[in-house]
Amino acid sequence: MDEQTQVVVETEEDTGATTTKKTIILFSGEFDKVMAAMIIANGAAAMGDDVTIFCTFWGLNILRKTDKVDAQAKKSFLQKAFGGMMPKGTKKLGLSKMNFAGAGAPLMRKVMRDQNAMSLEELFDSARELGVKFVACTLSMDILGFKQEEMIDGLEYAGVASYLGEADEANVNLFI
Amino acid sequence: MDEQTQVVVETEEDTGATTTKKTIILFSGEFDKVMAAMIIANGAAAMGDDVTIFCTFWGLNILRKTDKVDAQAKKSFLQKAFGGMMPKGTKKLGLSKMNFAGAGAPLMRKVMRDQNAMSLEELFDSARELGVKFVACTLSMDILGFKQEEMIDGLEYAGVASYLGEADEANVNLFI
Amino acid sequence: MDEQTQVVVETEEDTGATTTKKTIILFSGEFDKVMAAMIIANGAAAMGDDVTIFCTFWGLNILRKTDKVDAQAKKSFLQKAFGGMMPKGTKKLGLSKMNFAGAGAPLMRKVMRDQNAMSLEELFDSARELGVKFVACTLSMDILGFKQEEMIDGLEYAGVASYLGEADEANVNLFI
Repeated sequence: MDEQTQVVVETEEDTGATTTKKTIILFSGEFDKVMAAMIIANGAAAMGDDVTIFCTFWGLNILRKTDKVDAQAKKSFLQKAFGGMMPKGTKKLGLSKMNFAGAGAPLMRKVMRDQNAMSLEELFDSARELGVKFVACTLSMDILGFKQEEMIDGLEYAGVASYLGEADEANVNLFI
Repeated sequence: MDEQTQVVVETEEDTGATTTKKTIILFSGEFDKVMAAMIIANGAAAMGDDVTIFCTFWGLNILRKTDKVDAQAKKSFLQKAFGGMMPKGTKKLGLSKMNFAGAGAPLMRKVMRDQNAMSLEELFDSARELGVKFVACTLSMDILGFKQEEMIDGLEYAGVASYLGEADEANVNLFI
Repeated sequence: MDEQTQVVVETEEDTGATTTKKTIILFSGEFDKVMAAMIIANGAAAMGDDVTIFCTFWGLNILRKTDKVDAQAKKSFLQKAFGGMMPKGTKKLGLSKMNFAGAGAPLMRKVMRDQNAMSLEELFDSARELGVKFVACTLSMDILGFKQEEMIDGLEYAGVASYLGEADEANVNLFI
């Protein structure tokens, strides 16, 4: 029996039961939901997990460069309108609840500073330093008219097949 | 050791490490979130996965027939009111963000047409052709007063126990 | 081969392929989303699963005592403001859609009573009786200024590392 027990132990590692890869589809672009995603991602990465955040639709906004990029000539009128109305980067995101016409997120940021909690920007930077992989959904980018030169550096660009391949390898897959 | 290695390999298949079943609880009924669900479902089904979309609460709206069905006599006043105010099918869904009193979704549809992206209706039809299973949550139907004759054909009707049974067999379970 | 087959069977149980633990991050605090979480949790617990609901951000509201607790002296001005504007317990939650300035949830409650469906409060009590574990996210509590004496009894208090540990052991992990 001793040898067979050995097999069981090895098997546990081989069958992927111990995989700790995590994926998050970040669909939402609200301050509080992005915060939740970043806290989970940082926590998992700090524990040694592989983490991929697949940003799609409104979640793409956090990956946009905050400075003006001249890509307007490549966009349709409606894409310019969508792009112009949506926030660039993490600094201008609103709350999903109690937004108070935009005042909610700054108030929550102030409470967080008072508590010495990490800011959303610090969590985002920390996630990237810990090796969390940020993927921009190319289909959503096409629809919203976002161009790669408008996005921050260090991203991967992929579609749903890539997401599914990663999700198949992960043991926790969240849609936020 | 050779024989034991063999055991390990067989075990990998037997323990379900290779299952690629996916489930999605579609709770939301907004155009953009339904789009996300349909893109994931189509992608997974195209890769050969079993996919079940469990529609509940506002997600049930996409399964309603667009033509008038006379089931009013079986409904309470409030159920008629709820039913009357909610969209039937996928064509009237609003956006979760930037809805602009209903103008947001048509604008996003136009951008998608300009990009030659598949429409939501095409994605929905494609999902059904690829064998994605759509389940209508019977408990939500009871609450909202939806009757089976008001729903499109080819659905399954089930409750939370059925969902949990399928989720137990799946390796990716999302709540959208 | 007989002995080795035996190994395979044992392995299935050992590798966690048969685990039926479930985790739910309850981020949202709307009546309909909390209902969905409670229905899933009750269903899973009734089938013998271990279920943990990790309440964070707006989801914390359902864990607040409804009666006045004097913890104001420990809070900043903004935390008092946030706390004062957010609902305590499950009774005052609004709907995520068709809220009609607060009238939506009472209407849905009435429809549910007419259908003899379990109320949200009954589902919440039932979940606790069935052993569903409710965890309050300590980081969110710090930000929103919630103190343990303001929360109902029988909760656990933990952070993201605790969530990740449980999610690693579970086969279904949802973000609601």
